[in-house]
Amino acid sequence: MSSNSFGKIFTVTTFGESHGPAIGCVIDGCPPGLAIDESEFRNDLDRRATGKSRHTSQRREADDVEILSGVYEGRTTGTPIALLIRNTDQRSKDYGDIVNTFRPGHADYSYWQKYGIRDPRGGGRSSARETTMRVAAAVIAKKWLAERHGVRVRGYLAQLGEIAPQGFDWAAVEQNPFFWPHAAQVPALEKAMDALRKSGDSVGARVNVVADGVPPGWGEPIYGKLDGDLAAALMSINAVKGVEIGDGFAAVAQRGSEHRDEMSPAGFASNHAGGILGGISTGQAVTASIALKPTSSILIPGHSVNLAGEPVEVVTKGRHDPCVGIRATPIAEAMMALVLMDHALRHRAQCGDVGEVSPRLA
Amino acid sequence: MSSNSFGKIFTVTTFGESHGPAIGCVIDGCPPGLAIDESEFRNDLDRRATGKSRHTSQRREADDVEILSGVYEGRTTGTPIALLIRNTDQRSKDYGDIVNTFRPGHADYSYWQKYGIRDPRGGGRSSARETTMRVAAAVIAKKWLAERHGVRVRGYLAQLGEIAPQGFDWAAVEQNPFFWPHAAQVPALEKAMDALRKSGDSVGARVNVVADGVPPGWGEPIYGKLDGDLAAALMSINAVKGVEIGDGFAAVAQRGSEHRDEMSPAGFASNHAGGILGGISTGQAVTASIALKPTSSILIPGHSVNLAGEPVEVVTKGRHDPCVGIRATPIAEAMMALVLMDHALRHRAQCGDVGEVSPRLA
Amino acid sequence: MSSNSFGKIFTVTTFGESHGPAIGCVIDGCPPGLAIDESEFRNDLDRRATGKSRHTSQRREADDVEILSGVYEGRTTGTPIALLIRNTDQRSKDYGDIVNTFRPGHADYSYWQKYGIRDPRGGGRSSARETTMRVAAAVIAKKWLAERHGVRVRGYLAQLGEIAPQGFDWAAVEQNPFFWPHAAQVPALEKAMDALRKSGDSVGARVNVVADGVPPGWGEPIYGKLDGDLAAALMSINAVKGVEIGDGFAAVAQRGSEHRDEMSPAGFASNHAGGILGGISTGQAVTASIALKPTSSILIPGHSVNLAGEPVEVVTKGRHDPCVGIRATPIAEAMMALVLMDHALRHRAQCGDVGEVSPRLA
Amino acid sequence: MSSNSFGKIFTVTTFGESHGPAIGCVIDGCPPGLAIDESEFRNDLDRRATGKSRHTSQRREADDVEILSGVYEGRTTGTPIALLIRNTDQRSKDYGDIVNTFRPGHADYSYWQKYGIRDPRGGGRSSARETTMRVAAAVIAKKWLAERHGVRVRGYLAQLGEIAPQGFDWAAVEQNPFFWPHAAQVPALEKAMDALRKSGDSVGARVNVVADGVPPGWGEPIYGKLDGDLAAALMSINAVKGVEIGDGFAAVAQRGSEHRDEMSPAGFASNHAGGILGGISTGQAVTASIALKPTSSILIPGHSVNLAGEPVEVVTKGRHDPCVGIRATPIAEAMMALVLMDHALRHRAQCGDVGEVSPRLA
Repeated sequence: MSSNSFGKIFTVTTFGESHGPAIGCVIDGCPPGLAIDESEFRNDLDRRATGKSRHTSQRREADDVEILSGVYEGRTTGTPIALLIRNTDQRSKDYGDIVNTFRPGHADYSYWQKYGIRDPRGGGRSSARETTMRVAAAVIAKKWLAERHGVRVRGYLAQLGEIAPQGFDWAAVEQNPFFWPHAAQVPALEKAMDALRKSGDSVGARVNVVADGVPPGWGEPIYGKLDGDLAAALMSINAVKGVEIGDGFAAVAQRGSEHRDEMSPAGFASNHAGGILGGISTGQAVTASIALKPTSSILIPGHSVNLAGEPVEVVTKGRHDPCVGIRATPIAEAMMALVLMDHALRHRAQCGDVGEVSPRLA
Repeated sequence: MSSNSFGKIFTVTTFGESHGPAIGCVIDGCPPGLAIDESEFRNDLDRRATGKSRHTSQRREADDVEILSGVYEGRTTGTPIALLIRNTDQRSKDYGDIVNTFRPGHADYSYWQKYGIRDPRGGGRSSARETTMRVAAAVIAKKWLAERHGVRVRGYLAQLGEIAPQGFDWAAVEQNPFFWPHAAQVPALEKAMDALRKSGDSVGARVNVVADGVPPGWGEPIYGKLDGDLAAALMSINAVKGVEIGDGFAAVAQRGSEHRDEMSPAGFASNHAGGILGGISTGQAVTASIALKPTSSILIPGHSVNLAGEPVEVVTKGRHDPCVGIRATPIAEAMMALVLMDHALRHRAQCGDVGEVSPRLA
Repeated sequence: MSSNSFGKIFTVTTFGESHGPAIGCVIDGCPPGLAIDESEFRNDLDRRATGKSRHTSQRREADDVEILSGVYEGRTTGTPIALLIRNTDQRSKDYGDIVNTFRPGHADYSYWQKYGIRDPRGGGRSSARETTMRVAAAVIAKKWLAERHGVRVRGYLAQLGEIAPQGFDWAAVEQNPFFWPHAAQVPALEKAMDALRKSGDSVGARVNVVADGVPPGWGEPIYGKLDGDLAAALMSINAVKGVEIGDGFAAVAQRGSEHRDEMSPAGFASNHAGGILGGISTGQAVTASIALKPTSSILIPGHSVNLAGEPVEVVTKGRHDPCVGIRATPIAEAMMALVLMDHALRHRAQCGDVGEVSPRLA
Repeated sequence: MSSNSFGKIFTVTTFGESHGPAIGCVIDGCPPGLAIDESEFRNDLDRRATGKSRHTSQRREADDVEILSGVYEGRTTGTPIALLIRNTDQRSKDYGDIVNTFRPGHADYSYWQKYGIRDPRGGGRSSARETTMRVAAAVIAKKWLAERHGVRVRGYLAQLGEIAPQGFDWAAVEQNPFFWPHAAQVPALEKAMDALRKSGDSVGARVNVVADGVPPGWGEPIYGKLDGDLAAALMSINAVKGVEIGDGFAAVAQRGSEHRDEMSPAGFASNHAGGILGGISTGQAVTASIALKPTSSILIPGHSVNLAGEPVEVVTKGRHDPCVGIRATPIAEAMMALVLMDHALRHRAQCGDVGEVSPRLA
């Protein structure tokens, strides 16, 4: 059925294939009166873009966003906002040899089994190219959340293969191409990436996302919980295999006396819960973490089958991206922003723009 | 807004509070002609029930399901199936003292901030009592999936605090009150639980769920991916803080050459992906794992605030359940079954009851 | 798929068959804090009830509503409100002979073709019995709309067969069993109904519904227009064959200079539009009119076929209701109230509880 | 909230303003494998186009549809199909003087009250320009319905002001610019239109739509009835004020013995029901009729207010279309096709591609 839309009230519908004429999205339900112009998409699209550094694959596109509707004289009107990006760097020829082959670890086989037809050019619809429009749509969500509620959504790379950060500084994150929170490790990361590239292999990654300023009360029991919706949103990112909220899997080995976040008039004493209890925000920072699998397109040959069911050997040619997880940081931020935006509107639908409920803890 | 419904085509809407008159659900979209009667709910409800053993809390209710609609002469008619369970063991008096207090780790504070009103009796809507109806609804889904597609959904406890299974046998799982896959460890688990109960503390748990027999082609790009919907479904279970598909977080440190599941005419060589690629099932077993936090209601006093914002000390009285994760096993199975059921119908909506697409791998 | 739910934010899901154990509904998305108790359903359910007068069929049930959830200490909590009515007057024996026969004008044949199975008892799910729960759910919507926005929804019978009102007085409507707006005609209506009953035949009816106090700005372009949603809501009532907003079909022969409602600082000069322009309320009264077909269950024999496809003659036994349209008045009010309630919440989701926009016309 | 999408499984989301850069739509949920190319949109877009004859307003645009996604080598792939049409004839200057004025009968005032901001250029989002994309999307639905089920959807003008057809011939409908079913009256219609244009006024219209070949079993109780969804779909067309299914309002004065469609082994004896009983198709032709109000933009001055709430006189300049109802014919067909398409998929979601259920009547 129709599953290319995200969000119940602030709804983003994306379309487009990796090597089709264009990708785009329609944002429906945006509050009217928000100032927005085409230049505002630049920063986050650049952060996400392949080609940003030598450590991510080399598709180089301007990715200029055109606003087709929903904005009049620089302000949203409440009608659907359509955004369009033309695909200029299609290079279909690179993919000619995979028309009859199912690449291991890719969606080739599952799409084929589902639809009986498949657009093989650059992965078609299953390419991470689609996430460009999530990032674009989230630019609007981030802006509204910031202006209206003071919410700030930020992410960083929390693990690269087996390398974990040895320090943490938000200021460092945007200063290196890895979104890494500890500047001193950047040379080591570069070295590790170079070694990977040389070996033709790839590694996985972990990305953390944090939203500050979320007021208490967002999220809905039972099947629209804020953490449930975040899990779906983050798991829908290409290559993601796991999602944690707050302490996540570490909670398995914890004691109740350790995990439960005690409260006092001064606020919560800790944030093991990741800012969500019973599916509803508590007013603390909302924290999530995701696991990304290693890139499946590698230079090391692998076994597969072709359309006729015969055994074949597959080797990826062309672009090779030793860690797709690196550029997942802005995408994860985008998905968290879209979830929060939707829940901000859902909350006021049912509960209105009510005043503060006492007591309110920090 | 309205978030108490689960599933797009096979839609389950639950209602009811822990200590209200009744809990129930409405299942809308069930295929007609499925044989079902009230006795078929018994087994899974018993598996889930508190009171099953001394290791889970002592609410003792018959939990007899009454079918109110949608079934005629023992078969589903295609109209909504309403199921009802009366709450007989309400014991509201036990909860009288928490009306003015926010229990740490519970949804008390977040519900209060959202709605400005809260049903404190037994946790109200945020109680795990609600999951009874998920399990009941999933009995129907499991039966249809088994009869129509040969799908079997099973779960087991994969970690209890720091204890992990030292062996695996499906046959063992249903032979002990822990859903533990290695019989020899059961005495040790009992000892660990007794120690926890004596200490008044609690631990977290990990539950694994596996669906065998899922055909390739279920799941929908981009925002209705099978893994995305599973993540939302599993994260919506009370106390869950993390969800993994396939290798999950272990994928972070893996190499691409290791993680990608190679294919041959004989089938897939491995199943790191957990049976899902690009959000669509591959025909392999669909595997998921969840982390459950330790019970927040413990006998060890904790700090909190009351309605007036004043500091208070909270101690849970009455039932004490040292590991809520144990009875999450049938609930996790239920959520996976509901997701699969919905996707089975979604798939045939768009793609029809098509014949097999070649090549089909095991 | 699942189509027993109505409304996007204030969502009502109904269940139950005419002669099953019970009928009920789940109201999800209701704002918290609304005072409600079981006695408040009495008036509208009595207005709708068959058995109210000798002019409607003789099913006599108390129709006592039980609130199963979502209300604590007399106030809504924001969680789903389940309402239940037990069916006490089932008289299944009356319907034994229609198990194998498709009654002309009824849903027997179409349900059979859709599902391949059919609950024949009293019409099963297709019985107007289901509308009881719409009326019950709308009691809550009406109350919130009145308290929060001063909205009042009222209906009346605007035509009975060929008889049209010769005068209009809202005060008269609730003083007679026909919801007729002109008291002097009531004896003539009774006489017409008696003649119909004697002849064993039936007639159609027209019902008008008016909502006063609707603020401007409710309704959503393009596919969630207030008039579009009203049309669906009203057409979904059993036996309805036509829906008009404002002047409706009279607009076909009108001139533009006559139809367009001119404006001045004193307000609109007329209300041909029925209070809706571009799918959005203007602040004028929202007006709609519906056509109801004559009762299909009549004492005059009719031709049909049986399950084997053989010709049969059908005569309705038992209850005979010469004009089902009469009791559609409270049902039509209910559907308008549910639509308005949903749109009130939808509006504030996107646009917030904004202050008044100038200029505002009456 | 987000209301620019139509359909639950075959979902069409439209975007764009009358004088913005482009209009477009995203079709999500289309079955894979359907052959489609850009030239197939031409015929229906021409039928709908203003500028087709001197009797409709003079916007002249090529309206070339570009397929941006979802089609690979001429066949749908199951992924979202995005269609785009650039607005080339924007003529914003014509509308400069209505920025501060609310035109009577238009959505200017209601949009302003809803959003507090308004794109006044050519009516912005409320312009009938939006319906272009409905017609485009329905080209795909019509083709699938025809190929898969032999369904044909056709419409005609059934009344122009006070003029009704004096004969009926489907063959005539496409031979004149009015979609009029009786060729001999065409000169009279032209004369009537010329007189209207000279007077500067406008009239309403009635359009009938008929779908042949719809199998029994499409449509869903209770709130997704085929007639309910048709009512919403048709009422959502600009200027529509009334919707009838089958006999519609004529049923008010009918007797039950007249209205109910009797059945025999040879089929139904009549079709007063319009092919729908209990919200589900019967296998007969599905028939609907709509009332369109007279064009509000006329050359006769009218009273209104401006943004400051002061009285003003409004006269439409530029294009003048004496009967907007004429070009509603292909739009009404489009909406019926979209509803049928969606219900075809919804039916097989729940009930599968089942074989025929006996007895089946014509």
